[in-house]
Amino acid sequence: MPDKLVNYDLLSPTNFLARSVTVFPDKTAVVYGGTSYTWTQFQERVFRLANALKARGIGPGDKVAFVCPNIPPMLEAHYAVPLLGAALVSINIRLSAGEISYIINHSDAKAVVADNEFGKVVAQIVSELTQVETFVNICDIDDSTPLDGPDYESFLAESSADPVELAITDEREILSINYTSGTTGRPKGVMYHHRGAYLNAIGEQLEFKTHSQSRYLWTLPMFHCNGWCFTWGITAMGATHVCLRKVEPREIYRIIEEEEITHLCAAPTILIGMSVYAKESGIKLSHGLEIMTAGAPPAPTVILNMESIGANITQTYGLTEVFGPHSVCQWQEKWDDLEPMAKAGIKARQGIPYIVAEHMDVVDPMTMTPVPRDGATMGEIVMRGNNVMLGYYKDEKATAEAFQGGWFHSGDLAVMHPDNYAQIMDRKKDIIISGGENISTVEIENVLYTHPDVLEVAVIPVPDPKWGEVPKAFIVPHNGCEPDPDKIISFCKENLARFKAPKHIEFGPLPKTATGKIQKFKLREKEWEGRDRMVN
Amino acid sequence: MPDKLVNYDLLSPTNFLARSVTVFPDKTAVVYGGTSYTWTQFQERVFRLANALKARGIGPGDKVAFVCPNIPPMLEAHYAVPLLGAALVSINIRLSAGEISYIINHSDAKAVVADNEFGKVVAQIVSELTQVETFVNICDIDDSTPLDGPDYESFLAESSADPVELAITDEREILSINYTSGTTGRPKGVMYHHRGAYLNAIGEQLEFKTHSQSRYLWTLPMFHCNGWCFTWGITAMGATHVCLRKVEPREIYRIIEEEEITHLCAAPTILIGMSVYAKESGIKLSHGLEIMTAGAPPAPTVILNMESIGANITQTYGLTEVFGPHSVCQWQEKWDDLEPMAKAGIKARQGIPYIVAEHMDVVDPMTMTPVPRDGATMGEIVMRGNNVMLGYYKDEKATAEAFQGGWFHSGDLAVMHPDNYAQIMDRKKDIIISGGENISTVEIENVLYTHPDVLEVAVIPVPDPKWGEVPKAFIVPHNGCEPDPDKIISFCKENLARFKAPKHIEFGPLPKTATGKIQKFKLREKEWEGRDRMVN
Repeated sequence: MPDKLVNYDLLSPTNFLARSVTVFPDKTAVVYGGTSYTWTQFQERVFRLANALKARGIGPGDKVAFVCPNIPPMLEAHYAVPLLGAALVSINIRLSAGEISYIINHSDAKAVVADNEFGKVVAQIVSELTQVETFVNICDIDDSTPLDGPDYESFLAESSADPVELAITDEREILSINYTSGTTGRPKGVMYHHRGAYLNAIGEQLEFKTHSQSRYLWTLPMFHCNGWCFTWGITAMGATHVCLRKVEPREIYRIIEEEEITHLCAAPTILIGMSVYAKESGIKLSHGLEIMTAGAPPAPTVILNMESIGANITQTYGLTEVFGPHSVCQWQEKWDDLEPMAKAGIKARQGIPYIVAEHMDVVDPMTMTPVPRDGATMGEIVMRGNNVMLGYYKDEKATAEAFQGGWFHSGDLAVMHPDNYAQIMDRKKDIIISGGENISTVEIENVLYTHPDVLEVAVIPVPDPKWGEVPKAFIVPHNGCEPDPDKIISFCKENLARFKAPKHIEFGPLPKTATGKIQKFKLREKEWEGRDRMVN
Repeated sequence: MPDKLVNYDLLSPTNFLARSVTVFPDKTAVVYGGTSYTWTQFQERVFRLANALKARGIGPGDKVAFVCPNIPPMLEAHYAVPLLGAALVSINIRLSAGEISYIINHSDAKAVVADNEFGKVVAQIVSELTQVETFVNICDIDDSTPLDGPDYESFLAESSADPVELAITDEREILSINYTSGTTGRPKGVMYHHRGAYLNAIGEQLEFKTHSQSRYLWTLPMFHCNGWCFTWGITAMGATHVCLRKVEPREIYRIIEEEEITHLCAAPTILIGMSVYAKESGIKLSHGLEIMTAGAPPAPTVILNMESIGANITQTYGLTEVFGPHSVCQWQEKWDDLEPMAKAGIKARQGIPYIVAEHMDVVDPMTMTPVPRDGATMGEIVMRGNNVMLGYYKDEKATAEAFQGGWFHSGDLAVMHPDNYAQIMDRKKDIIISGGENISTVEIENVLYTHPDVLEVAVIPVPDPKWGEVPKAFIVPHNGCEPDPDKIISFCKENLARFKAPKHIEFGPLPKTATGKIQKFKLREKEWEGRDRMVN
């Protein structure tokens, strides 16, 4: 333990829990179906989990993996594991057994706690997990214990509820490892530190305007950047966490009404689902709802649809490597009188860095020179500051590459508007180079999203003998629609520079990652089979 | 300069300015009468001031003193001076020439910038200021330059507007020195650090719910704990600073309406003035107004009066040594249905530590054992954390005393309620020990404030042959009232335990410090002349 100076305290997001217990001992901290815990009860469960893990030999520097949906134990882990000075590895529940095995082994996890729905998947690879000493089963949906270890509730019940003090000596020590969803290649382990998570958690709340009476719905996976640090930020405000096992539009709207939800976060893919369901079922919200979205630039039409039912959307932008959101499309009074579609267009921008994030720019990635603020010249988004990861776990080469030139390289291509708001045009790997011109696939997709027949779309470059590359659109039509490809192309020509219109259209489902991101690389692989593509 | 790591950035409140310039370049940053500056213009003035001071030899470790009311140059100093790695010494404008001389000399200030209203006072003692190399005159009310140096606007105009980078290498370096108003003895120089001010500035905004469209009125002196860090916090949010030279109720209400003020901070003495004026003039606010108060426990009646005109009062508690407010009387839903007077009674509590402040307790000051949470046992309020001062400038003895037992000792006596909310009963020096019983002067004062004839009151212990000490109340009656002392005593007996009722009443004005705090020690000195008083 560090010397407890009168005027210095380690910045750790675990601190927020003790404060909320002091202020709101009997207020509801966590709701999950018919179960709810006060802050005092929640803290007791955290202490029990920490003491139980400690008794199994977990301490500073160790790693503990969780394979668990957005239910209370996943939240408890966000306090119990870091309190011990250990790092939490919260694994995407939608991954395959092979991917889970890779992550558990790569992270050197000594304990694995799995919800039994996913424990069944872990059970298949248990023989590969040679470093794991402890398995625990969360028996939420049934009593089965697929892994050789206690059930979670007994694990807690048999442990001590004695207070556990934070066992770190430096606020930049490792807090968690979040594996990137990896649209290509092996997932990389992004190491978070206590200081960054503390600041980002508070920063989120400054931007998102939560307060002690907020009720936050867990539509965003906690295994995704530790729930963009809301696992800690909602606690900081003494607000209420409302947990949710399965993310389905119908269930989301039911809980929004029943639990009087005021705030939620969601990836655009969830928003699309919510938007379609709202339209089909004629949903109107009975009270105000703040939605924060990030993860991919949302189409203006999706924003428009969600706002028409009564929600207010704030777009933020970030990556796993920067603790989730790093920038926000901060709304300005001067835009209040714009037309709805123009407003939605602005809200689709990635914006300006958070108050606590400070440094973001769009630069020429070779020279690191900022691009002109003309809304047209493309460059790479780079970031610096307290909410950048320590690096990739056991991967110095990838870390050095990501940190080249003293900035974290996002791999996102963007323009900088004259008002200093950044707007993503594409992933570096996705941009289309056609006859020497750069064409943004996002720009084409945004136009396609305004077409009434289009539910979801992905545009990629395909080889072309004349232009080198041309755009091709993969479209998921709305239920019952059978759009005519030529009419879709004409629609694009009317709404875009003609050379940007897709030359080919294909209908069908889109390949997605476990977090719901569209895997353009899979579409590209098929189209480019056996051919090399020039990528910056 | 420190190595610019990708994932580390010094926490300094000066960072907020650059961010607000990026996000809100053309939005109004500062308003003062008919003058206003955008964030870009304000930053240019800050850079000009910093470069001008640098050209006069100011650099890391130096001190720069300002004697200036709440006008734009005072705000500019809060950025320009710390950017240079120097410390800002913002001196109370209401002090005497002798006190100002003491502070300038004790702080080792190399430059003094004075508004010419107060420059006239400084001019009297200029021969004593042997360490000062540069004098600058702020010619706001007229063109006179009482000090031998340039006028502020020429000083800026002749300087460069080149960007100035923050010249510190450790975030715990000194940022400012704020001299305590000192109800007794020589003022002590409280050293603030960058990290603490950054966190406290953000913490304030989390509690006070400001946002980018807030309009903040400067009714709280910036020389008081750097305006409780709102000098930086309002900038962090990109809100608007509305400056104010003279704090008079009539002018305050005029500006609240004209400038659509949404937030202000004020010491209870200002609130009393505002409350009386509102009653006399039948003021009702045309829009919501959030008021944060601290500095002394406000009487419930004052809170009630202010809320009846449409303001919402949040009470916070702190001292110069903890960067201003450290705790807040966080409102809880469960109190929503209480009677107005009961609500006001709760709002008069000092509450629980800020989200960023974390540690506060009420302890036996000798053993450091927390008092029982019974709302009755008195102990001393102690604090720890990132928003505690570095120490007193050039006073290791006083620092060690204040930091005894690993906590900062407030000198305030309080009880801890069962819900963990602290409530001040008295200053350690003020408590009355009567026949072996502790009597809180604050408790008696709060009862007296509910009497219709009482405008202001101070209760002190006076010697008594039988009881050792008994309470005496010094009362300022409302205009035109001539209350009967016996009736006042009866009123107290009806509303307090009988032994707590004052035995003596005196009418007349109250002695106050330059910041408006009542100087009970002056009343005591008179009453105890030639006699010793036992003080804990």
